[in-house]
Amino acid sequence: MEHQFPKGFTGSGLHCGIKSNAQAEDLALIVSDRPAVGVGVYTRNLVFAAPVQLDRERTPSESVRGVVINSGNANACTGEQGLRDARQMADWFGDACGFSGDDALVLSTGIIGEHLPMPKIQQGIADAAGRLGGGGDALTLAARGMMTTDTVPKIRARSFELDGAPVNVVGLAKGAAMIGPSMATMLGVVMTDAAISAADAQAALSEAVDESFNCISVDGHTSTNDTVLLLANGAAGGPVVEGKSLSILRATILEVCEDLAQAIPADGEGATHLVTVEVHGCKSRKDAVQIAKTIADSPLVKTAIAGADPNWGRIVSAAGYAGVPFQPESVTLLINGLLVYEHGVPVKFDAEEVSASIRDNRDTGLVLILSEGAESARFWTTDLTAEYVRLNADYHT
Amino acid sequence: MEHQFPKGFTGSGLHCGIKSNAQAEDLALIVSDRPAVGVGVYTRNLVFAAPVQLDRERTPSESVRGVVINSGNANACTGEQGLRDARQMADWFGDACGFSGDDALVLSTGIIGEHLPMPKIQQGIADAAGRLGGGGDALTLAARGMMTTDTVPKIRARSFELDGAPVNVVGLAKGAAMIGPSMATMLGVVMTDAAISAADAQAALSEAVDESFNCISVDGHTSTNDTVLLLANGAAGGPVVEGKSLSILRATILEVCEDLAQAIPADGEGATHLVTVEVHGCKSRKDAVQIAKTIADSPLVKTAIAGADPNWGRIVSAAGYAGVPFQPESVTLLINGLLVYEHGVPVKFDAEEVSASIRDNRDTGLVLILSEGAESARFWTTDLTAEYVRLNADYHT
Repeated sequence: MEHQFPKGFTGSGLHCGIKSNAQAEDLALIVSDRPAVGVGVYTRNLVFAAPVQLDRERTPSESVRGVVINSGNANACTGEQGLRDARQMADWFGDACGFSGDDALVLSTGIIGEHLPMPKIQQGIADAAGRLGGGGDALTLAARGMMTTDTVPKIRARSFELDGAPVNVVGLAKGAAMIGPSMATMLGVVMTDAAISAADAQAALSEAVDESFNCISVDGHTSTNDTVLLLANGAAGGPVVEGKSLSILRATILEVCEDLAQAIPADGEGATHLVTVEVHGCKSRKDAVQIAKTIADSPLVKTAIAGADPNWGRIVSAAGYAGVPFQPESVTLLINGLLVYEHGVPVKFDAEEVSASIRDNRDTGLVLILSEGAESARFWTTDLTAEYVRLNADYHT
Repeated sequence: MEHQFPKGFTGSGLHCGIKSNAQAEDLALIVSDRPAVGVGVYTRNLVFAAPVQLDRERTPSESVRGVVINSGNANACTGEQGLRDARQMADWFGDACGFSGDDALVLSTGIIGEHLPMPKIQQGIADAAGRLGGGGDALTLAARGMMTTDTVPKIRARSFELDGAPVNVVGLAKGAAMIGPSMATMLGVVMTDAAISAADAQAALSEAVDESFNCISVDGHTSTNDTVLLLANGAAGGPVVEGKSLSILRATILEVCEDLAQAIPADGEGATHLVTVEVHGCKSRKDAVQIAKTIADSPLVKTAIAGADPNWGRIVSAAGYAGVPFQPESVTLLINGLLVYEHGVPVKFDAEEVSASIRDNRDTGLVLILSEGAESARFWTTDLTAEYVRLNADYHT
């Protein structure tokens, strides 16, 4: 089934000339036909881009009317001029679509340290404003307008019924493996036609990002531009959600974010495996995340998986230096469901069987079980292949 | 000039059958003809090997008589049996060389999770004990006996005069880029014929390791077996060093450790650059190390250097997510001495000149300058090439 925008949202995407490839969309608009609640979660990098600063100032909000997005240029490390350019983009967007530029948010991704080609962007916004639509084609073009090194647009949607009326949650994201000068910038825009308070929206998005986009690791980099926005415009018609309805909406937002997050490492050009690292039995979720992330970031683990090598030693050792205390003699490890290490001791296993299970499947599952507590976490990453490195080394600024 | 053992030390190395390649040494002995001060610095990994446990129990000591080293098998994740095997190695070593096995230290490196082939090791120790020598050939064989994926033995030496008598500091190390199932285990043995107290020796080694072996980053992994030992036997004949003499000895130990440490990333098979990351202007050395390490560990930075890409954005961004607060507008960056980013803003530079300076030299220097304080740190790493990853992916357990 082709996805569409949620009720009350439209969008468009086109090539305005930021990217050299004339076939590649580099500008996208997302518009709400009424003031929407808008909240964001932003990069923790100390070096953050101008649009991040702008959106931080403008959210949470109850009057967001849209998001203007460009790819090909991150507007990062661009100083005061960069901030003026971001504001100008918002103002042109508002002018073109009939609302105040102050109610627009801005996202940028691409090359760092260069000023935006503003005349092209001005023309692009004017053109894109004339092509807004709510259907699948417009949605796909908007998603394509965010792409940099992504090989596919990333659109995920879920819906549920609330008092008999359908409620939609639709998300767009960009981000692929580590390739690219924008350092795997991850952008996400989640739209819903539900009505939710700004405070609840912020809580819902923060929680969802924490368990999805913050649990993917492709290169360990937190980029200058990483941003996930949630817009909720209430066009579905129901009351502001609370209680059980709120819980359902929150769970749905989380699901859409998880779906989008997994699509990012899955789009690693040159990568041959999507790796899910599960860590169980920790004292806290934070501990579990730390261990899972350390395993997922280890180039030794990632190259072993690329080589279909059931190298449990690298995995156990990575857990050991994660900085989280645990009893080494309690550690148990499964690779693709096959037990390779139990209570701190390697078990006899059929190495060829485990190796084949890695080699023959795109998905690889690592499950590490400790006995410190009841908390767990899941992390997604890719393997590390020679092709992957070649692409990154050859990708010039 | 060919290096030799310091006075009072002898050693040997040979193939005893742990490695399948019959041309590859896999056992080494180092013997002091008199009781030596022996201290160690050990892996911080929670999962540590049996020999690490043994040496931790036995150091600091004033009666160390030697070190028995095997490569090809790390004796890690081997439980109680592994600990018994390590003790047995020490006892055989002592029996063969005429001292108590309790005064021996043990180092192992190689594959994880397999028990040592003890009969081969017993025979090897007996054979090696018959070949001890103090000259360059014996020193080289001892260094070769530690090697796993190293392509060259690593021996560095310095000497100085103390009251007219020569004092020698000679170090051996093993460790290469990230290749290998032992996860880039780093072993070092530093020997000196100076006389130093155990407490001063521990302080000297801890400081030296902190500024040398702890400042190299090839894969971010802290292995199960990482160990650096310092043996001081006083055979040079002088009194126990103190005051200025102690300072000179400490500085010399640090120099030998720095020389050895740099030799490890320089021996990265498949790597094409040795990268030195300097960070200046931090509040504390710890902050500077954290930022330097984060840059050195970044696969994006490492692939950019492999591609001779002067990608300052990746470097500045890596600094930004190191978890150390700083003013982004104060950041200045030089690549191979060429200014590319100044006070938070990219400067116009000749990209082809910087790219050529990376491409045409094996050494790449990154200098990041902040303005938070007066502390600095230096870190060494390699670039990340496709060949490097291919070798790691293809290296099977």
